[in-house]
Amino acid sequence: MLPPGWNAISQDRFAAHGFEAVLADRDPYNPDETIYFSGFRPPPGFIKTLPNLKAIFSLGAGVDGFLRDPDLPRQVPLVRFVDPTLIHEMAQYVVMHVLMVHRGQRFFDSAQRESQWRQRMLARPSRDTRIGLLGLGDIGGAIAISLLPFDFQLSGWSRSRKNIPGVKSFAGESELPQFLAQCDYCICVLPLTDDTKNIMNAAFFAQLPKGAWVINVARGGHLIVEDLIAALDGGHLGGAVLDVFPAEPLPSDSPIWRHPRITATPHIAALTDPVAALAYIGDCVARCESGRALENVVDLAKGY
Amino acid sequence: MLPPGWNAISQDRFAAHGFEAVLADRDPYNPDETIYFSGFRPPPGFIKTLPNLKAIFSLGAGVDGFLRDPDLPRQVPLVRFVDPTLIHEMAQYVVMHVLMVHRGQRFFDSAQRESQWRQRMLARPSRDTRIGLLGLGDIGGAIAISLLPFDFQLSGWSRSRKNIPGVKSFAGESELPQFLAQCDYCICVLPLTDDTKNIMNAAFFAQLPKGAWVINVARGGHLIVEDLIAALDGGHLGGAVLDVFPAEPLPSDSPIWRHPRITATPHIAALTDPVAALAYIGDCVARCESGRALENVVDLAKGY
Repeated sequence: MLPPGWNAISQDRFAAHGFEAVLADRDPYNPDETIYFSGFRPPPGFIKTLPNLKAIFSLGAGVDGFLRDPDLPRQVPLVRFVDPTLIHEMAQYVVMHVLMVHRGQRFFDSAQRESQWRQRMLARPSRDTRIGLLGLGDIGGAIAISLLPFDFQLSGWSRSRKNIPGVKSFAGESELPQFLAQCDYCICVLPLTDDTKNIMNAAFFAQLPKGAWVINVARGGHLIVEDLIAALDGGHLGGAVLDVFPAEPLPSDSPIWRHPRITATPHIAALTDPVAALAYIGDCVARCESGRALENVVDLAKGY
Repeated sequence: MLPPGWNAISQDRFAAHGFEAVLADRDPYNPDETIYFSGFRPPPGFIKTLPNLKAIFSLGAGVDGFLRDPDLPRQVPLVRFVDPTLIHEMAQYVVMHVLMVHRGQRFFDSAQRESQWRQRMLARPSRDTRIGLLGLGDIGGAIAISLLPFDFQLSGWSRSRKNIPGVKSFAGESELPQFLAQCDYCICVLPLTDDTKNIMNAAFFAQLPKGAWVINVARGGHLIVEDLIAALDGGHLGGAVLDVFPAEPLPSDSPIWRHPRITATPHIAALTDPVAALAYIGDCVARCESGRALENVVDLAKGY
């Protein structure tokens, strides 16, 4: 159940603060005495077995793994993991994949495999290349800033209007069509909520310019895979980069792995760093215990 | 002789200014009446056949293609091509290749080819990853700035000390060993001069940390290919990304193409954009004709 690296979790950090830390699927614990919970996607119904929780800490940037639980106690603060390391890694992933497509690196890889010197100009000048971020919060904003030095045209779409110099802001349902119509690259970093589930569907893809690329680093639930494949095979979309899938691990018989215009990676765009996560949770617990207000608490009505 | 895209060169831009533009290997021209020359790597001895030149404009950022000519008239100003588009493209290339290595993208590509879900953490946290720019002028400085958002440790080495916030500056021959000892990635963007020719040799590679990567986007003459291959095969270096070669095009029987730890691309890191270059030359000519001083004139003693 634990992602790579987490088996090395030590109780030391918390013991130093006089706490006892337990792994729910390994160590014995008393539910009544458990006052903090941290995880990524606990089994629905599990959280309510802990009646005295003061706070819940998500180990990922997204909290859909908690919100899917109909029995999630609504009165307990649910805290998002907001971590510079995770945000940097997400930005690295997106910038790398945009650049690999923009610069035709796969073309040059294939020329190298044939030992052939094949020069080629960029298919589209950088200054004419339009990159749109679907979601312009902590993560989307950081990705936009990482893309700024490269001379692309940048925009973002979010619920409320944002002010990031050099990044055009589109806001709300009504501006989504205008946003999509100008995305040569459309990068999804939205939280997964009832409003955003299946947002990337046939009608969505049809609104992107011909030849557009879709990059999904948010959740598999944002994208209807069959619609994506139809838009790729129909020639409307140029390609896709997917790091997240409806079911993970993606089964080895999935056609996604073998599609010639999909790059698929195993949910590694930003792996939570155990050291950073434990430090973050430690800070949150200290804050809580000293009576200060928690930061990054999820608004359950908005879902993020 | 002309790089891709240049066949579309039109005389319009210069005709509008009352000039006649000719292509030396295509159009008739009168050497005595030719007052400006632009090119990338003219045949040695050619420039001196134009006795009345007022200025020479390089079509590339580097001017080694001119300086190799022993008969280059030393009194005619030689102007480097300094172009934001070219600099952006160079930064894109370097950032993309650093990130592909840092994030193990080739590992994930190979897992995808086998339809296998293989999660893996970064081999080294970003904050512990040290990237060094060999050359910290217009291009090296821009690359460093493009790398800043990703949480790497950045440094540069140059003849004179530079002050770029977030980028440690090493200067002069005496600080080269300290610089090399802390480069997990060593990126060469130096001008090719008598001082820098063959700078990347066996002794140089030995000073890099074990597992370091070398990226050369400068000139083939900076690097001794046999020494690089020995350092790779001996296990000291982790890999190399080469965009430039001693002889170009790289012959299809070169072992470089097939080396498992070399990525080779056909000198495309930054292709001069004909539109930008013609605009630049037009501005330089206008400047010259109106008696203003030229910018970006090469110091022949330094070689850049």
